[in-house]
Amino acid sequence: MQIIDGTIASPKGFSAAGLHVGLKKEKKDLGVIYSEIPANAAAVYTTNQVKAAPIFVTKEAMKDSKIQAVVVNSGIANACTGKLGMENAQTMQSLAASHLQVAKEDVAVASTGVIGKQLPMEIIEEGISRVDLQTQESYAFHEAILTTDTATKEIVVTEEINGQIITMAGVAKGSGMIHPNMATMLAFITTDAQISEELLQEVLADKTETTFNQITVDGDTSTNDMVLVLANGLAENPMIEKNTEAHEKFISMFQLVSETLAKKIAKDGEGATKLIEAQVVGALNGSEARLVAKKVVGSSLVKTAMFGEDPNWGRIICAVGYAGSHTDPEKIDMWIGNQQLLKNSQPQDFDEVIMKQTLEKEKINITVDLNIGEQCGKAWGCDLTYKYVEVNALYHT
Amino acid sequence: MQIIDGTIASPKGFSAAGLHVGLKKEKKDLGVIYSEIPANAAAVYTTNQVKAAPIFVTKEAMKDSKIQAVVVNSGIANACTGKLGMENAQTMQSLAASHLQVAKEDVAVASTGVIGKQLPMEIIEEGISRVDLQTQESYAFHEAILTTDTATKEIVVTEEINGQIITMAGVAKGSGMIHPNMATMLAFITTDAQISEELLQEVLADKTETTFNQITVDGDTSTNDMVLVLANGLAENPMIEKNTEAHEKFISMFQLVSETLAKKIAKDGEGATKLIEAQVVGALNGSEARLVAKKVVGSSLVKTAMFGEDPNWGRIICAVGYAGSHTDPEKIDMWIGNQQLLKNSQPQDFDEVIMKQTLEKEKINITVDLNIGEQCGKAWGCDLTYKYVEVNALYHT
Repeated sequence: MQIIDGTIASPKGFSAAGLHVGLKKEKKDLGVIYSEIPANAAAVYTTNQVKAAPIFVTKEAMKDSKIQAVVVNSGIANACTGKLGMENAQTMQSLAASHLQVAKEDVAVASTGVIGKQLPMEIIEEGISRVDLQTQESYAFHEAILTTDTATKEIVVTEEINGQIITMAGVAKGSGMIHPNMATMLAFITTDAQISEELLQEVLADKTETTFNQITVDGDTSTNDMVLVLANGLAENPMIEKNTEAHEKFISMFQLVSETLAKKIAKDGEGATKLIEAQVVGALNGSEARLVAKKVVGSSLVKTAMFGEDPNWGRIICAVGYAGSHTDPEKIDMWIGNQQLLKNSQPQDFDEVIMKQTLEKEKINITVDLNIGEQCGKAWGCDLTYKYVEVNALYHT
Repeated sequence: MQIIDGTIASPKGFSAAGLHVGLKKEKKDLGVIYSEIPANAAAVYTTNQVKAAPIFVTKEAMKDSKIQAVVVNSGIANACTGKLGMENAQTMQSLAASHLQVAKEDVAVASTGVIGKQLPMEIIEEGISRVDLQTQESYAFHEAILTTDTATKEIVVTEEINGQIITMAGVAKGSGMIHPNMATMLAFITTDAQISEELLQEVLADKTETTFNQITVDGDTSTNDMVLVLANGLAENPMIEKNTEAHEKFISMFQLVSETLAKKIAKDGEGATKLIEAQVVGALNGSEARLVAKKVVGSSLVKTAMFGEDPNWGRIICAVGYAGSHTDPEKIDMWIGNQQLLKNSQPQDFDEVIMKQTLEKEKINITVDLNIGEQCGKAWGCDLTYKYVEVNALYHT
């Protein structure tokens, strides 16, 4: 497998564009992904009971698991906008369909931004009419979906599967309201692989559990989250069948793309200066390992300790203790970087100089061994900083 | 019922003391409560699986539900301290028992402070030997149990029950690691009422659900939490029987004491400038109402919005949506203060001047009507501020 430079339009038959239409002051705020032919599609959505209008529109479009185009706006979430919001999301779908000359039912819609504000539809209409997939740059799509993100988030990988080079590209936005079960997180993954929609959905659901659902910025699960995968089959590989080497290779590509996007989202959490990766081993099962890992990276006290570059294992073991997994409170081992802090829940001497260097880095690894089983899991988060408070306190509705 | 000035030693037959022994630099760090006779006692403890040594010692002492004295230290939590920590907690119990001339099995022990550090037992021993209940002030106990708290937390109430004046006093400490199911929260309640230990435990368990377990500062549940209630019966009222007017009156006293302490803890959360009270009405049942209320006051985004004095109802409805209760996402009403922000989940016009005044206050009331049932519940939290990050990032182990 190879990581290459590229964009969401790198897989065969995809194009993309992004532009400024006026929902945000200056930054790009509308984007489109397009596939030459309808792609097999898979999606997962926010678990928040309060769902934004575009979620319903995309779910409807996904009934036949075929999507040919995606239209996304940033700046306004189109959530808590009632009947008019639903009509606007449907209109956005129709406008994109007619401009791109694809069936309305094959267009997915996504929005991210402020809750409770209606989309200004003239701006949306005028904006969509200016989309030109021939002349506009596909990287602009990566920018057009951002909100408080400080950087675009993407990865493109290639792999030979059954004699054909398959390309898979992912792009995401994150930043705030990032927690389990999809946060204000949008991710789009395109591939030219030939794979059935059922198998695609299975891979997506499976990998969402261990990647996108294992990141947390502030514990808030947003109303608009979505991961959408399009596989248009234009690489003309033989159809990927379940439990074959091709399937395994596809899963590996998908894992790398999802995990990379997830980590980039966590690292770019609002106000964050550090990516924190918690790995839990020795758990009874994988879901408990992931639960404990996520409680560790989700703890405000751990997050502030990492910001302060303090090896505060007390806060970490405290989070392990309240996570709700099976635990033997006397048998916990813990490391930050390669320095062991706890053995059988007892403090260990460590090298303070090395620890200081470890905590100064932009990525901090916390490892917890529960010593009661064989399973493991990871989660990713970020530190909690003055800047997080600033970003979210100074923001005014 | 009357609220009076007083201390934890106000009920008949109780005395208390607090002093500086040297676990903290300058502030008082050891305290004792004493009852002339063994009191009927009830207790609830942290649900964190990693429990501090004093929790085990107190649980053991509570086997017969009789406690005559309580010894508490602040500065060191005696958590994650292994066998030596257990021995030290037991020694602390023995030293207090012998100094106060009570049975060792009737002494409860509590600690709060840094995790993973051993208690310096010479200091504890010397400190306990200096406790003098005759000459020392009982209010000093309120100070001796504090950690990063900025104020003592107490309330004393009196009520006539069956012809006798009953006094009930409560004192608590809180500040960080404050969340459901007991956080780094210690609360002690004394009363001279005559009530069986079974009924006392029932009242405590019931009221803990709606008061202490409904506060959150940072979502972290500590290793050391405890609420301990002592009823020595020296008011000589006829034994309070279940489902009588006397029982009702006792419950009302207990509710007021517990809720007052809980709110004082929430308000004095680390770095907090505001107390936030969320009231959820129209829920299917009380526990779901409390769950939703707690998710609202626990949301980092809501907490930063309140710090920024922004009526950001989008973040509030988002928290309602992910709380996990029964909800009809189209039927939610919401108020901040007396200004309605949402009706049937749709934004309402409100008076911006009044809203600004409301948000500038030190206590902010958020009300959510789910409109699907008849039950209600409350929760209390605080805003998330630069100071919270400072307190927790600059703190070094």
